[in-house]
Amino acid sequence: MNGWVAIAGLGPGADALVTPEVTAAVAEATDIVGYIPYVRRIDPRPGLTLHESDNRVELDRARHALEMAVDGARVVVVSSGDPGVFAMAAAVFEAVEDGPAAWRALDIRVLPGITAMLAAAARAGAPLGHDFCAINLSDNLKPWALIERRLRLAAEADFAMAFYNPRSKARPEGFGRSLEVLRSVRSPDTPILFARAVSTAEEELRVETLSDATPEMADMRTVVIVGSSTTRVIHREGAPWLYTPRSVGA
Amino acid sequence: MNGWVAIAGLGPGADALVTPEVTAAVAEATDIVGYIPYVRRIDPRPGLTLHESDNRVELDRARHALEMAVDGARVVVVSSGDPGVFAMAAAVFEAVEDGPAAWRALDIRVLPGITAMLAAAARAGAPLGHDFCAINLSDNLKPWALIERRLRLAAEADFAMAFYNPRSKARPEGFGRSLEVLRSVRSPDTPILFARAVSTAEEELRVETLSDATPEMADMRTVVIVGSSTTRVIHREGAPWLYTPRSVGA
Repeated sequence: MNGWVAIAGLGPGADALVTPEVTAAVAEATDIVGYIPYVRRIDPRPGLTLHESDNRVELDRARHALEMAVDGARVVVVSSGDPGVFAMAAAVFEAVEDGPAAWRALDIRVLPGITAMLAAAARAGAPLGHDFCAINLSDNLKPWALIERRLRLAAEADFAMAFYNPRSKARPEGFGRSLEVLRSVRSPDTPILFARAVSTAEEELRVETLSDATPEMADMRTVVIVGSSTTRVIHREGAPWLYTPRSVGA
Repeated sequence: MNGWVAIAGLGPGADALVTPEVTAAVAEATDIVGYIPYVRRIDPRPGLTLHESDNRVELDRARHALEMAVDGARVVVVSSGDPGVFAMAAAVFEAVEDGPAAWRALDIRVLPGITAMLAAAARAGAPLGHDFCAINLSDNLKPWALIERRLRLAAEADFAMAFYNPRSKARPEGFGRSLEVLRSVRSPDTPILFARAVSTAEEELRVETLSDATPEMADMRTVVIVGSSTTRVIHREGAPWLYTPRSVGA
């Protein structure tokens, strides 16, 4: 039996946002590997083993998947969103690079998914309709000085920005510092979107200005999108729409 | 009858990358509006009118969709990739902002899709596994000076980068100038991925270094991904894997 590893994106939460490619891979799998809440999105069935693991053990989880595939298993590593955006795909290739030669010969595929920032942007309109950047605000895996430098340069470049992992209990102060960096460069009336748990029953959207935004508006289930200087707010009954025009004048 | 507009992302090309949410919206639609090659991806059926339009008439197309929805039509505006990334969603909201009040009262939804850079990244490994930016290199809608400024700041911020619309017959020189800007900041051995027509029969992937990259390697069906300083190439039999590690050392 030829084993394989598919690193699959389950999207932000709703089943209607899981691609048929991912659904087909799960249907063929013998083993599912991933962080507990993502593995729990997979329906159990005979012949399928679910391997749940905790947060922050991404490399162990990746090695486990690769070892099983070498032994002939058909393994789906599940991520939320897109596996290539602050998720499991990089961890698997990191394990491959440092691992035995047999892992380089494996059939490893990455199956893209709807990443959180694009699901959030869609719910609010089109705030990422022009040039933008995506920054992981967690300083678990990189020094804070690099985050701050990127924020400052991205603000100077007038990108719209999406922030992943804006705030955790362990590092509550980082997001407040990020807002201060943005305020030192960007206009106080820059629109900012807090999008929590998009496409799930707990979905909450909130549009503020940069001057009114506070760190408490985000938690680890929130994606934050900051507009560029051209981002517009369309007021209407109900939630406003945000969009960034395709054109920038000379 | 209550009309609506859904701005839907068809993904990069393969049907297996179209979300069930988009498939359901198309099944309920009375009218499909979009650029010719995207409308041709929709199967004709009784009761469904297909409205094809040419490139560069995005605002006219958006207004047409909104007018039909006010009259009770269920309109799906189709984009390739994700409609919120250099595609039709921003054009629709631009039309809404400048249009009659009735348009603000419409049911307008954006249905996310797999955008080209994430499909391309998935095929190659995980080159966008850390902080990254997305830049439209077309200077149809913005001054070249802004593109160059963004490229320079993004290179200084050490983002991985994805370029949409790198090169057209009308503006062949822009991508060459972009490569020069990158070379003035980034190391010559920075990996660069040319991913053409991902997930279609014409798919082609090519990995080069920044020093060896030439403008002819891209056309308008290509997404270009430039690594950060930490992006790794894993050599193996067959196409190499590219990935950007999740961590950056202090």
